[in-house]
Amino acid sequence: MSTAYELDRKHVFHSWSAQAEITPMVIAAARGSYVWDDEDRRYLDFSSQLVFTNIGHQHPRVVAAIKEQAERLCTVAPQFANEQRAQAAELIAGIAPDGFEKVFFTNGGADANEHAIRMARLHTGRFKVLSAYRSYHGGTQTAINVTGDPRRWANDTATAGTVHFFGPFLYRSEFHASTEEEECERALAHLRRTIEAEGPATIAAIILETIPGTAGIFAPPPGYLAGVRELCDQHGIVMILDEVMAGFGRAGSWLALDLYDVVPDLITFAKGVNSGYVPLGGVVIRDPIAATFDHTPYPGGLTYSGHPLACAAAVATIHAMRDEGIVDNAARLGREVFGPGLAEIASRHACVGEVRGVGAFWALDLVVDQGTRELLPPAGLNDVVAACKAGGLLPFANTNRIHVVPPCTMSDDEAREGLAILDEALKAGDVHAA
Amino acid sequence: MSTAYELDRKHVFHSWSAQAEITPMVIAAARGSYVWDDEDRRYLDFSSQLVFTNIGHQHPRVVAAIKEQAERLCTVAPQFANEQRAQAAELIAGIAPDGFEKVFFTNGGADANEHAIRMARLHTGRFKVLSAYRSYHGGTQTAINVTGDPRRWANDTATAGTVHFFGPFLYRSEFHASTEEEECERALAHLRRTIEAEGPATIAAIILETIPGTAGIFAPPPGYLAGVRELCDQHGIVMILDEVMAGFGRAGSWLALDLYDVVPDLITFAKGVNSGYVPLGGVVIRDPIAATFDHTPYPGGLTYSGHPLACAAAVATIHAMRDEGIVDNAARLGREVFGPGLAEIASRHACVGEVRGVGAFWALDLVVDQGTRELLPPAGLNDVVAACKAGGLLPFANTNRIHVVPPCTMSDDEAREGLAILDEALKAGDVHAA
Repeated sequence: MSTAYELDRKHVFHSWSAQAEITPMVIAAARGSYVWDDEDRRYLDFSSQLVFTNIGHQHPRVVAAIKEQAERLCTVAPQFANEQRAQAAELIAGIAPDGFEKVFFTNGGADANEHAIRMARLHTGRFKVLSAYRSYHGGTQTAINVTGDPRRWANDTATAGTVHFFGPFLYRSEFHASTEEEECERALAHLRRTIEAEGPATIAAIILETIPGTAGIFAPPPGYLAGVRELCDQHGIVMILDEVMAGFGRAGSWLALDLYDVVPDLITFAKGVNSGYVPLGGVVIRDPIAATFDHTPYPGGLTYSGHPLACAAAVATIHAMRDEGIVDNAARLGREVFGPGLAEIASRHACVGEVRGVGAFWALDLVVDQGTRELLPPAGLNDVVAACKAGGLLPFANTNRIHVVPPCTMSDDEAREGLAILDEALKAGDVHAA
Repeated sequence: MSTAYELDRKHVFHSWSAQAEITPMVIAAARGSYVWDDEDRRYLDFSSQLVFTNIGHQHPRVVAAIKEQAERLCTVAPQFANEQRAQAAELIAGIAPDGFEKVFFTNGGADANEHAIRMARLHTGRFKVLSAYRSYHGGTQTAINVTGDPRRWANDTATAGTVHFFGPFLYRSEFHASTEEEECERALAHLRRTIEAEGPATIAAIILETIPGTAGIFAPPPGYLAGVRELCDQHGIVMILDEVMAGFGRAGSWLALDLYDVVPDLITFAKGVNSGYVPLGGVVIRDPIAATFDHTPYPGGLTYSGHPLACAAAVATIHAMRDEGIVDNAARLGREVFGPGLAEIASRHACVGEVRGVGAFWALDLVVDQGTRELLPPAGLNDVVAACKAGGLLPFANTNRIHVVPPCTMSDDEAREGLAILDEALKAGDVHAA
C-alpha cells in the first residue's frame, strides 16, 4: 500500500461512493492513451477517466501552454478582461453554429447546465424545465434534478420546476416501437403530449444531451432533434443541448450537434474543451438570449469564471485538435476500428445485447438474455470490469454497460489492443448470460 | 483598445452584468500585490481580485508547483486515488479542528455549499436550510437561494426549503440594540424564534459565513456562534460554517472560526485554499457526518473533484503560507496597519460611517450622514472607486462599501501606500455626504 492510498482512505471523501466500501486504484502517472498505477502497472485508458481526456493524457502542447500561462498569469477575477479568456471565448464561439457569439464560462458541466437553465428561465419568464429520464446533467442541485438517472433520487428534495420525459432509444424502447422511424415519431408525440399536459406557457426550456452519454450512448434517430426544435419554436421554449460529454471530438465531430441538422438556443460544454487539464465549462449563447442581458444584468456568476489557466489550456487544446486532425481521427476510429471491431466482438459473446456508438463514443449493452434483453446484473458487470483491469485495460462501466470512450487521439494499434482485451474479458460476462 | 478588450466585448459574457453597459479593465500581468493593465499601468490590488489571491499574485512557489504538476500529471478522475489529492486533503483536514478527518473536493465555493447542504439533508433526513439575509454563498441554484443579498431575487424560482433570518450586525441592527451584548442576545432570540416557527424537526442545517464577507464584513459578537451551536445541538441541526472568503488567512487566522470558541459540523472552503490559481473548493466533514456515508453511497460528485493540478497548488500554497508566516502577517497587518490606519482615515471623512474588520479583511461603510447612517448612493461609491483607480489602487466595492481585502502577503509599505490613495479618493465620497 502506498502512502497516497493510505492518505486517500484516511482523508479523501469520494463522489457517489460508500466511503468504507471502496478501494480506489492509485493513478501515479499518465501519458497518451495509458495510465500507470502506483506499482507501475500500465493500463490502456478506454475511459478517458470520466470521458474527458479527449486529447489523451499529458498532451505536450497543452502541458506547455499551462506551464507558460502559470508563469505569466495564473488567475484574474471575472469582472476583468483577459487575453486568454477572450481568445478561448472566440475559439469556442467559432466552433458553435453561426449566431452564437458569446460564451459564459463556468468551472465544469454541472454549473454550465445550472446557468443555461437560469438564462432560459430569465429569457422566457417561465419556470419549468423538461429533461429526459435517461440523462445525466451534473451534480449541483438543479443539474442533478434535471438528470434522469437514479443518482437523482436521493437529491429529489428541491426539485421544483423539473419534469422528466422519455427520449428515443430503440433498443429499450418506451414506445413499443420496432424501427428507428417509429421510435422517433412516437418519442416526439410523447414529448408533445408532455408539453401540452404540463402547459406550454409554463415551460422555460427543454434540456437534452445531444447524444446521451452516461445513460448509455444512444444517438437520437434522424429527425428527433429537429422535431424537438420545432416543438420549442411552436411554444417559445428554449432548447438547450448539453454537449459536456458528446462535444469536442468525442462523437467524431467538433460538436455532436454537427451530426444533425439542428441549431439549439444554448449549448453547454466542459470536459473535452480542454480535456479537463484545468477545470473549465461554460455556455455558448445564441444571440437573442445574449441580447436579453444587454441592458438587464445577468444574475449569476462564479469566482473562477473564465479562469486564465483553464482558458489557456482550452486555447492550446483546440489548436492542437485542429492541427493534429484529432476530431477526424475520432471519426475514423469509429468508422474503421470500433464500429467493425465491436460488431465482431458482439457476434462472439452471449452477454452482448447491443453495440452502438459513433467516433470515440461507444456502448456495449450487456444482457443475460439477448431475447429478453434483461440487464446483466452488477455481479456480471463487475466480473467483466475486473477481467479488463487484469488484462491491463481501464474501462468505463455503468449499470449493465461497458462504454468504450478512449482518448480521441488513440492509434489504431492501441484501439485494437484494447478491443482484444475487452473481447477476452467479456467471457466473464458470458458466464452470467444464457 | 487592445485585441483582448475587443475580443472580450465580442465574445465574453460577464457575470452579474448588463453586457452592453460594461467596459471591463484588461488585466495583462500581476505580481505580488500589484496588477498591470494592457497599457502597462500599475495598480495596487486592495481587492485580491474577488478576495481570493490571499498569497498574492504569481507566488513563485505556487507557480513552480503548478508547472511541476502540469509536467507530471494534470488530471485524474475522482474515483481514483492520487498523491496530490491525498496530500491536499491531509493538509486541509489538519487545518480544521480535531474530529474533521475527511475532505470532499469541489471546483469552488458555490458547489462546496451545495454539497454541504446535501450532506446535511441526507444526514438529518430533513429538508429546510436556514441562512442569513446578509450573506453570500455562491452562484449555483441552491447556493444562490441560501444567499441573502439582492442577487438572489432574480433566482428565487426554485427556492424550496430555504428560509432566511437576520444575523447580528450592530451598526445596522435589525434588533434595535445598542451594545454588542444586546445585539448578540437579541439575534440569538430571533434565530430561536425562527427555528421554533419553522419547526425544529424540519430543519437540516443552518449555514453561516463565519464572518460575513461580501455582505459587509461584520465579525459576529462574542457568544453568537456558540449560541448558534447550542441551538443546533438542541434540535439536531447541522451547523455549516462557510469559510470560502473568511478562511485561509483572510481573517488573520487559518480559519476564521479559530477566532471563536466554536466547532461546526461542516466547513466549506475555496478561494484562499490555493489563492484561486487553479479552481478548487470543498467541504471538510466532521466525523459523524462522514460516517453517515460509510456504507450508504454519498449521492453527489463532479468530474473535477480533487483535481491534481488544483490540489498541487493547494499543497504548495499551504506550505508557503506556513513557512512564510503569511497568516501571522495578515493578523499583524490588521492590528498594526489597517486597524489604526483606517480609524484615522475614518476620522477625516464625512462619508465614512463605520470601519470594521480584522486581519486583511476590512470594510468601510459609507454614508451620506453619519447620524442617520443612510447609505452612500451608487453614484457616490462610483466616484470613490474611480478616484481609487485614478490613484493606482484597485478597490473592492459593493452596495455602499469599500472593502480593504488585499493579499495577506502585503508589506506594510504597500498597505500604507494603498491607504494614502484611499484617503485621497474618499474625498470624492465626502462630496455626497453631509
